[in-house]
Amino acid sequence: MTARLLVKQTDGVRERPPADLSDLRGTPAWLDLAAPDENEMALIAEELELHPLAVEDARERHERPKADAYDRYYFITFSALAVDSPGTLRTEIFSIFAFTDVIVTVHTGDWPARAEVEKRWRDGRLASAGMLLHALLDTTVDGYFPIVDDYGERADVLEAVILQDVKGDALRASLADLFLLKRDLLRVRKLVAPEREVLQVLSRGDVECYGPEERRYFQDVYDHVVRVTDEIDTLRDLVSNIVDANLAAVSNRLNEVMKVLTAVATILFVMTIVTSFFGQNFVAFIPYDSAVVFWGSIAFTVVSAVALAVFFRRKGWL
Amino acid sequence: MTARLLVKQTDGVRERPPADLSDLRGTPAWLDLAAPDENEMALIAEELELHPLAVEDARERHERPKADAYDRYYFITFSALAVDSPGTLRTEIFSIFAFTDVIVTVHTGDWPARAEVEKRWRDGRLASAGMLLHALLDTTVDGYFPIVDDYGERADVLEAVILQDVKGDALRASLADLFLLKRDLLRVRKLVAPEREVLQVLSRGDVECYGPEERRYFQDVYDHVVRVTDEIDTLRDLVSNIVDANLAAVSNRLNEVMKVLTAVATILFVMTIVTSFFGQNFVAFIPYDSAVVFWGSIAFTVVSAVALAVFFRRKGWL
Amino acid sequence: MTARLLVKQTDGVRERPPADLSDLRGTPAWLDLAAPDENEMALIAEELELHPLAVEDARERHERPKADAYDRYYFITFSALAVDSPGTLRTEIFSIFAFTDVIVTVHTGDWPARAEVEKRWRDGRLASAGMLLHALLDTTVDGYFPIVDDYGERADVLEAVILQDVKGDALRASLADLFLLKRDLLRVRKLVAPEREVLQVLSRGDVECYGPEERRYFQDVYDHVVRVTDEIDTLRDLVSNIVDANLAAVSNRLNEVMKVLTAVATILFVMTIVTSFFGQNFVAFIPYDSAVVFWGSIAFTVVSAVALAVFFRRKGWL
Amino acid sequence: MTARLLVKQTDGVRERPPADLSDLRGTPAWLDLAAPDENEMALIAEELELHPLAVEDARERHERPKADAYDRYYFITFSALAVDSPGTLRTEIFSIFAFTDVIVTVHTGDWPARAEVEKRWRDGRLASAGMLLHALLDTTVDGYFPIVDDYGERADVLEAVILQDVKGDALRASLADLFLLKRDLLRVRKLVAPEREVLQVLSRGDVECYGPEERRYFQDVYDHVVRVTDEIDTLRDLVSNIVDANLAAVSNRLNEVMKVLTAVATILFVMTIVTSFFGQNFVAFIPYDSAVVFWGSIAFTVVSAVALAVFFRRKGWL
Amino acid sequence: MTARLLVKQTDGVRERPPADLSDLRGTPAWLDLAAPDENEMALIAEELELHPLAVEDARERHERPKADAYDRYYFITFSALAVDSPGTLRTEIFSIFAFTDVIVTVHTGDWPARAEVEKRWRDGRLASAGMLLHALLDTTVDGYFPIVDDYGERADVLEAVILQDVKGDALRASLADLFLLKRDLLRVRKLVAPEREVLQVLSRGDVECYGPEERRYFQDVYDHVVRVTDEIDTLRDLVSNIVDANLAAVSNRLNEVMKVLTAVATILFVMTIVTSFFGQNFVAFIPYDSAVVFWGSIAFTVVSAVALAVFFRRKGWL
Repeated sequence: MTARLLVKQTDGVRERPPADLSDLRGTPAWLDLAAPDENEMALIAEELELHPLAVEDARERHERPKADAYDRYYFITFSALAVDSPGTLRTEIFSIFAFTDVIVTVHTGDWPARAEVEKRWRDGRLASAGMLLHALLDTTVDGYFPIVDDYGERADVLEAVILQDVKGDALRASLADLFLLKRDLLRVRKLVAPEREVLQVLSRGDVECYGPEERRYFQDVYDHVVRVTDEIDTLRDLVSNIVDANLAAVSNRLNEVMKVLTAVATILFVMTIVTSFFGQNFVAFIPYDSAVVFWGSIAFTVVSAVALAVFFRRKGWL
Repeated sequence: MTARLLVKQTDGVRERPPADLSDLRGTPAWLDLAAPDENEMALIAEELELHPLAVEDARERHERPKADAYDRYYFITFSALAVDSPGTLRTEIFSIFAFTDVIVTVHTGDWPARAEVEKRWRDGRLASAGMLLHALLDTTVDGYFPIVDDYGERADVLEAVILQDVKGDALRASLADLFLLKRDLLRVRKLVAPEREVLQVLSRGDVECYGPEERRYFQDVYDHVVRVTDEIDTLRDLVSNIVDANLAAVSNRLNEVMKVLTAVATILFVMTIVTSFFGQNFVAFIPYDSAVVFWGSIAFTVVSAVALAVFFRRKGWL
Repeated sequence: MTARLLVKQTDGVRERPPADLSDLRGTPAWLDLAAPDENEMALIAEELELHPLAVEDARERHERPKADAYDRYYFITFSALAVDSPGTLRTEIFSIFAFTDVIVTVHTGDWPARAEVEKRWRDGRLASAGMLLHALLDTTVDGYFPIVDDYGERADVLEAVILQDVKGDALRASLADLFLLKRDLLRVRKLVAPEREVLQVLSRGDVECYGPEERRYFQDVYDHVVRVTDEIDTLRDLVSNIVDANLAAVSNRLNEVMKVLTAVATILFVMTIVTSFFGQNFVAFIPYDSAVVFWGSIAFTVVSAVALAVFFRRKGWL
Repeated sequence: MTARLLVKQTDGVRERPPADLSDLRGTPAWLDLAAPDENEMALIAEELELHPLAVEDARERHERPKADAYDRYYFITFSALAVDSPGTLRTEIFSIFAFTDVIVTVHTGDWPARAEVEKRWRDGRLASAGMLLHALLDTTVDGYFPIVDDYGERADVLEAVILQDVKGDALRASLADLFLLKRDLLRVRKLVAPEREVLQVLSRGDVECYGPEERRYFQDVYDHVVRVTDEIDTLRDLVSNIVDANLAAVSNRLNEVMKVLTAVATILFVMTIVTSFFGQNFVAFIPYDSAVVFWGSIAFTVVSAVALAVFFRRKGWL
Repeated sequence: MTARLLVKQTDGVRERPPADLSDLRGTPAWLDLAAPDENEMALIAEELELHPLAVEDARERHERPKADAYDRYYFITFSALAVDSPGTLRTEIFSIFAFTDVIVTVHTGDWPARAEVEKRWRDGRLASAGMLLHALLDTTVDGYFPIVDDYGERADVLEAVILQDVKGDALRASLADLFLLKRDLLRVRKLVAPEREVLQVLSRGDVECYGPEERRYFQDVYDHVVRVTDEIDTLRDLVSNIVDANLAAVSNRLNEVMKVLTAVATILFVMTIVTSFFGQNFVAFIPYDSAVVFWGSIAFTVVSAVALAVFFRRKGWL
């Protein structure tokens, strides 16, 4: 475990030993616990009189964001998203115990927003524990936008490919992409959607540890989360639309392939019948030595093939 | 930036320097800010004591319409739609700070409704700041109707094409049109649907800066927005219906192409077998010099071909 | 314009000049305005102190039914449906200003329910203005049932056709019918669904111009509208079900056509190979003068064709 | 009409002339009206001071279950389901006027639950009019379960058929069954779903004619109706799932038929080409009298046919 | 029946004869009834003054979880899931009568969570009857997670198979798996979803038999049930996505099979025509003894076959 206690003193934010936590009440402080073990959590829980259910949830790494209101604090589970390499989404579930003056964050991995907020806290740019909590949630939620925008671009590219596709080759290539995009949207939505409720709890002020001004800031983060879920829902509809377009295009192409097959088979079949006719052994009746018949048969074959080709092209089958 | 302050004085609406804003309280005025930079926004914010969150939202150009109630004013984000050339929808997101007496509009581009309302304001036809706000929202929303009507006409055309199509050529042409129409409907819906909530906030009167009469006018705009979203939802269902009809038509046509192929192949195959039979070298058994056999074979070929053609036509395969 | 003022006097309902409207307060009266122009509407509006928004909505012929509660009256927009000839649905949007004693109807075209209610009003069978309003809405809504029942019958016919269809010919014919039925259902639903809210407003009694007894009658009309929308929703599900059945039937038939093609092609191909084999010029090796070989080849062809035919029929491909 | 008045006297339940109804107030009684005509209904309505709207609804046989609260009684429309022969669902819509002491049932046909409850009432096993009402609704709702269970079994059978189907024959047979099952579910749901609201009205106690204990019993019937609608919704999802499985299976089989066609056509075509090659008249170049060539050609044909067959089988096309 | 009464005495939990139940009021106790018959239930019901409706529900083994609030106790129906062997889900519906001090469980079969909670109760690790109730529900709900996780893994495997599938063989194999997975999800959801309401009733505290601390624990179980239903809903969407991918892949493969067929048929047909041409008996015109013609015909056949093969490969059909 790494436990760091960052206290906002009059002379700036200082890092102090975690054990000082009990002396600090009334001074805004941030206790950041990275991968604490069971004993360490138990110590903190005793120190801050945390409810056993909240401590258990913080340890268990639930995958569903939620906010529980306790007597003097909120217990919040939230999720950060990070794209370390293209196509792989990393999810970091973290927990927050949010008191009036102390914010305790519990996490296993790390995510960019946390480091950024830490810098702002150390620089003294965040006025209170409430604004620290807002900064953590707001910066984490802001991290969703580039990811969702990226999904939007992938959808646009796939749409362009499918609607402008002539050869049909792209259809095969983009199929897997489409379904992977849809799956990613489903997974992100599952993580983001319940966060609307988390921020509603905070902006309603179920626990009286933050004032109306801070609640307004939580309301603003709520608006951002709603915007993200809106974007995701619209993207899901767009992707469904593209999938339908893809299926319709595939059906249409099948139709066209079958028309080509029918036209080609008909033309070639007719040619075969002519040559096959003159392969018959009716030497007594078919004047095989007549130039008229010979050239006539060739002419008939060519003319009927051309006529059929023209007929099928007019019908749009070739 | 262009900042224009249009004050409704007893002798008519006059344009005055923006700096006069602080002297005007109590007199209805419209401050229109086109593409303000950060410093200019900061000045206005200080003058009108705007909340930093609202100022940030006005600058950030959020894409989701919303209305936030502050102490003495509303902060509104709204979207205008314009079709500059056929098929290209331009979206203009703008913000409004709505006080009892002062309306501040912040935007980057321009849209027809704004110019129209400015004319009415200058002509003194709008009685108060509240009616100016109503005029801005109402005229902007009225601008949606021709766009949605146009989508309705595109849907009607596509429906007629698909249901009356005989040759199947139109199916290919209209496929992309259908999916583009559906995508446009999705995008417009995403912009318009949240505006219902904006107008509910205004007509509920969360901030006490407008009277019941003005709230009734906001309620009327709300009805219009509901009508637009209703139209869009019905259109989406209609387009889905057309897409389904298209797919069913494509499947049906494939069936028919395959029936033609089967019928043609069967007929021509039978003819080949006859000619091929008499191409065998069984000169001792097949009386190649018999006129009966020769003409019989030709007659059999013709009769069986005709019989098969009639059979398949009765079955509806040809 | 035709304006008729039908006043319920003690000696029966009399038609009086519209100008008498101002003298009549307290006496139940119905003012029916057919296609009024702007000036006429303005006169009525002044006489009855109508709100400008309501007057504007009455003139504009909005396509979405609604009920607005004003100080002493309701403004109602409602829609009547009429089937003048089979397959063509005519929609008549009309407006009502409903006071305690005066009902003003504004419309452009006419619809059967209006004439019927006028007769009942003239005959003195409607006790009050409230019961006149109820009769207008109730009779109009009752006019929906035959239309929806007719849709139900169309759906039943199409279902029977598709589920009992053997030849597949009906599939093509009924395709367009199905999608037109679905489109009609969408359009009717769009007009009828918002009327539930209209009747909820009336039965809630937002304006105190009708008593609890009359509100109970509005509640009854509400139940009818709910029944119509329920029917439409069930019909939409039924039609979707039929469309799916249609598509499944088309897919199944395609499967069967392809099985026939495969079976026929295989059988005829095998016959061709035999005749083609004996068309080879290997006179030294193929005993073309052997009766065994000749009849054997014919027997082989017939037997293999029959065997294949039996094989494919057992497999269910023929 | 058959009108029977069953009064629960101290010495047991006795049938008395309907005309005695007016003398009975305070004694629990059940007045059962089978197919009453207009005059008879009018008499009852006058006797019990029924509201004209309720009387009209009872006569009109509305198809939507509902419960209206009047001053001293409920007016209830409810639906019974009966399966007289397999596959045919009979619907019996009946009405109830429910007073504190008198229950009036109005119906045209009969249904098993009514007879069963009559027996229990006659045997004195139902303590009050409220418990009689509960028994009528509860027994009627219990009659839904065997019907829904039967649908569940039909769904299970169809699922088993489709998922285990090898030959594809079952697909055709079960198609119509699936869509008929889905239609039946839609129709039952339309009748049952509104009954949830009926029982909510009763268990809420909108009219003060039944005590909390009887309301608890209505709540229990409500739970049963919710269970039925839950079952139906789950069944609808299951059937949709089976329909999708069916369509996917059909597509898969089509793929396989086409692979067989392609494989068979290729093999037979190659054989034709060989025989056709040696049917050419190039006697000067093709050594038709060479045993090597003859047997070689036959060997080549056989080997290439076998090689192609193996190739296609490895690919999974044969 | 096995009835066991486990009483939490000061000296630990002791098993006492069920008949002692009446003497125990005030001491936390758990009465566990396995498969009680009608008489036994009647005895318990009399002893604890249970409501007849609750007793009937406990006996009838309803399949829908619910919680009814009675005067001094809750009646709860809940479902446990167990996977005894892979692919077979066993459902155990059990009932609980939950008093302040006594918990009565009624069940027919057994499930792991019950045994585990019994051990904890015997060990004295559960402080009160309320915590015993929480442990029963919590442990039962925790038993859902491995089952749902297992479904998630099945979905992941199927997704990987379908998106990486090259040969198309996997499509057939995974089809049934997909639909069975979807069916299982439907069935589990039907059992789990109503449990959200059960836990809402408990955490709301409709009956005043448990304190706020215990209600918080019920709230925690509620969160778990919400998480399970969320997982199931996301899984259902994922599976639908995979099914769509499957169908699209099948359509794409059909397209490709048909392209191969068309290409192969065209090439082989052209070859047939050449050989068939030189099988004609026009010995006077076709110089069958010309080496140029012979080798030319062979060259033409080979070249045109290769050219067509290249053409089709460039088109992506081969």
